[in-house]
Amino acid sequence: MKPVALETGEPSRVPPLIHKGNKGISILDLVLRAVAIVATLASAVAMGTTNETLPIFNQFIQVKAQYNDLPTFTFFVIVNSVVCFYLVVSLPMSIFHIVRSEARISRVILIFLDSVMLALLTVGAAAAAAIVYLAHKGNASANWLAICQQFNSFCERVSESLIGSFGAILGFIVLILLSAIALCRRP
Amino acid sequence: MKPVALETGEPSRVPPLIHKGNKGISILDLVLRAVAIVATLASAVAMGTTNETLPIFNQFIQVKAQYNDLPTFTFFVIVNSVVCFYLVVSLPMSIFHIVRSEARISRVILIFLDSVMLALLTVGAAAAAAIVYLAHKGNASANWLAICQQFNSFCERVSESLIGSFGAILGFIVLILLSAIALCRRP
Repeated sequence: MKPVALETGEPSRVPPLIHKGNKGISILDLVLRAVAIVATLASAVAMGTTNETLPIFNQFIQVKAQYNDLPTFTFFVIVNSVVCFYLVVSLPMSIFHIVRSEARISRVILIFLDSVMLALLTVGAAAAAAIVYLAHKGNASANWLAICQQFNSFCERVSESLIGSFGAILGFIVLILLSAIALCRRP
Repeated sequence: MKPVALETGEPSRVPPLIHKGNKGISILDLVLRAVAIVATLASAVAMGTTNETLPIFNQFIQVKAQYNDLPTFTFFVIVNSVVCFYLVVSLPMSIFHIVRSEARISRVILIFLDSVMLALLTVGAAAAAAIVYLAHKGNASANWLAICQQFNSFCERVSESLIGSFGAILGFIVLILLSAIALCRRP
């Protein structure tokens, strides 16, 4: 048996049904990326603009709660910004897949980068969620008191900013699945 | 152009080089899964068996620190156990890919399940890491004191148990990449 060249360059032999199916997948990929851009941007902005000022004793002594009081929340804003930037950069690749639906190597690269970004975004969101949970419930064993009774609106805003991030995480899982299906459908 | 059947059942036309390459990828996949099983199991056991008893004032009044004092650490143990169980269940599928290296649909399913498990494991590890960080450093703004000065060996053990989890996260990213490459190499 003699080795056969991998790419024989016969695009006319690709069944038209597969071309159509992969174009549909690529369009869905583009839409999902656009939604994830909005979600991560909204999360970063919502967390980054959170602050609450409370008067203690009288209006002259005040306590201000800001997102950057907690390093985990600063990390959350950075991670969401990085992932949002990556998604914007990946848009041209997604559009390229709509035009050339038989592309393979670029899809493998996208699956790899998407899974790295999925892990990065999940680290940021889960770490922030753990701190938010602690702020709501506190922990008697470690003697950490719940701070949400005082900083109610701060806690609410911070909790809400997690929604976009976790939505984008689900989006990334679907994006990886879509790319895998597109690779599988290649004849 | 008339539509062409996707599976024409001509295994003899698959180039032997691709068969060989995919077999190598599948063997690497199996090895990585075995390593990830050990890593997640070690993480779960290390965290689950962590406790430290400290005498306060005299030896009659004691304070005990256990992993289940903090819900995040309990969650970490559960998540690592679930992911370890999934990896064991996925082993037969990985062996099937060594035997039948041209398999496609089962690889797509594996990419999807791997990315879900990647997200789950990352949530557990990142949440635990956020709490470990807080235990080490504390937070002046929220008035949460560092507890690692007192529970030194507890903190060390808990920090070490994160290593296996983060190793398995890297393993999952490589596993997804390997499956994508195997799908891409199909002729």
